[in-house]
Amino acid sequence: MTTRTVLESKSKTVTIGFDEPFCVIGERINPTGRKKLAAELEAGDFSTVEKDAIEQVACGAMVLDVNAGVVYNSNPNPNETEPPLMRKVIELVQGLVDVPLCIDSSVPGALEAGLEMAEGRPLVNSVTGEEEKLEVILPLIKKYNVPVVAISNDDTGISEDPEVRFLVAKKIVERAADFGIPAHDIVVDPLVMPVGAMASAGQQVFALVRKLREELGVNTTCGASNISFGLPNRHGVNAAFLPMAIGAGMTSAIMNPIRQVEMEAVKAANLLMNHDPNGTAWISFARVVDAVKEGATFAEAAKASAAAGSGRGGRRRRRG
Amino acid sequence: MTTRTVLESKSKTVTIGFDEPFCVIGERINPTGRKKLAAELEAGDFSTVEKDAIEQVACGAMVLDVNAGVVYNSNPNPNETEPPLMRKVIELVQGLVDVPLCIDSSVPGALEAGLEMAEGRPLVNSVTGEEEKLEVILPLIKKYNVPVVAISNDDTGISEDPEVRFLVAKKIVERAADFGIPAHDIVVDPLVMPVGAMASAGQQVFALVRKLREELGVNTTCGASNISFGLPNRHGVNAAFLPMAIGAGMTSAIMNPIRQVEMEAVKAANLLMNHDPNGTAWISFARVVDAVKEGATFAEAAKASAAAGSGRGGRRRRRG
Repeated sequence: MTTRTVLESKSKTVTIGFDEPFCVIGERINPTGRKKLAAELEAGDFSTVEKDAIEQVACGAMVLDVNAGVVYNSNPNPNETEPPLMRKVIELVQGLVDVPLCIDSSVPGALEAGLEMAEGRPLVNSVTGEEEKLEVILPLIKKYNVPVVAISNDDTGISEDPEVRFLVAKKIVERAADFGIPAHDIVVDPLVMPVGAMASAGQQVFALVRKLREELGVNTTCGASNISFGLPNRHGVNAAFLPMAIGAGMTSAIMNPIRQVEMEAVKAANLLMNHDPNGTAWISFARVVDAVKEGATFAEAAKASAAAGSGRGGRRRRRG
Repeated sequence: MTTRTVLESKSKTVTIGFDEPFCVIGERINPTGRKKLAAELEAGDFSTVEKDAIEQVACGAMVLDVNAGVVYNSNPNPNETEPPLMRKVIELVQGLVDVPLCIDSSVPGALEAGLEMAEGRPLVNSVTGEEEKLEVILPLIKKYNVPVVAISNDDTGISEDPEVRFLVAKKIVERAADFGIPAHDIVVDPLVMPVGAMASAGQQVFALVRKLREELGVNTTCGASNISFGLPNRHGVNAAFLPMAIGAGMTSAIMNPIRQVEMEAVKAANLLMNHDPNGTAWISFARVVDAVKEGATFAEAAKASAAAGSGRGGRRRRRG
């Protein structure tokens, strides 16, 4: 099995794949649930977006999710406001960092605006198994020849039965094929439920990821932090979930790369999956951990390490 | 598959099994590589053993490994010195904590002394595929009706080929059957190599554990910290390795339970495997983590939590 989902920025290629390091997609450029960021964006202040773009990449994000879903106080129609904001944010982020983007919107016009604006080959987030979504999104995916995140819910909602979620994913892959979109350009999100609310949530995901990989041959992603929703010491749950999901075959996640404990878990899992030749990435990460022990924040230490690395020319994050 | 390896102390039962929380076997009562402890034991000072017994159980060890392998300066013959020291240490530990023991020695006389002394049903550590070992240890296992750790090396040494290690484990299970010892009383150690020296070490173990479980139906254990030997930030590697091994089906490890990050990884993995009903153990552990954030050491916080729990009568570690 050699499934490879190829993403590109202006000059870099990132491959999501079974034999690749886990693809960390930075989730922070998203005003959903971030009131301060939403207010800033409406006011035309992009300073938080700039900081989030630079910090996430320094901390190890290989792809950045960009969501411009602000409901403006001055205009509550996202079909009017979101497409131009998506263009603006993408333009800004591409000027700051050279990593592929994940264009994230529930507004088709914003996805198309993002696709027009993005350099290289971005990932689209997302299509579902809902008929209306399939009919609108898949032609866009075909037109721009880009990969897409496929979320395993449909017109009946999110099933608690993992077998139903598998069948929704299968349907999306088949419908995409009808449009001429290959399975290696579908990155399935099997949907992670909170383990505090559904005790079998972890085992469901691990089993689903294995099955999606073995039977559909697709890459997978998830909103990793959902697993710990409502529990105390969430980072501890996330930091065990990520290696277990990676061991089961998950190949990417949309997550917060500014969190040291989660990034440490991903880097260690890459090493243990033999996706870190000579342990180079782990040894480099351990130096960042040392700097944090000496008092730096993780983002500061990661930025300093990234700057030193690119200065020496031997430590750039470029892959593929 | 319902493989259950039943261990007992004076009044408690611990089951190693596919549907049980991961069995943490505390490794610290072992003078190997601990010069200070070795000198204390030769001088008849058992204060470190006492502290290690109490702290390990408070921190979450469900079984305690007991190794009395001191080479005395006054008498270099372990066949003479180790059996009486094993008796003494077991007597002491049993007087302090009520958990099953893992009797650990390469000296058959010390194993038999331990088996005579131990209350309940201890685990014996270990037999290998070496002919001489099989002929000496398996009759002891049969005589005392106890389970045994089976290490996957034989007279040819430790193979780097996981298939050879699987066949050694299979041979031990078959030879044990000849003695009337059932497979559920064999806990196989597939041997964990350092991932820093052998890049495929993690993947080897995960694949071997799955195969041992599916094809031989046996429980598994390992010296977990071997995986990170020689690497920086070892705890970070161990803390990803344990959940990945648990996700692959490993059911116990001989490890240091005084280390918060590793224990946190095990507790989170239990939750994610649906082996922590209602998240009770995770929520209790999160309180210990909070106390550590406020300045306590992990052992102090765990001891305080264990004491408060047993005082309320609702939080004893008894299982089965």
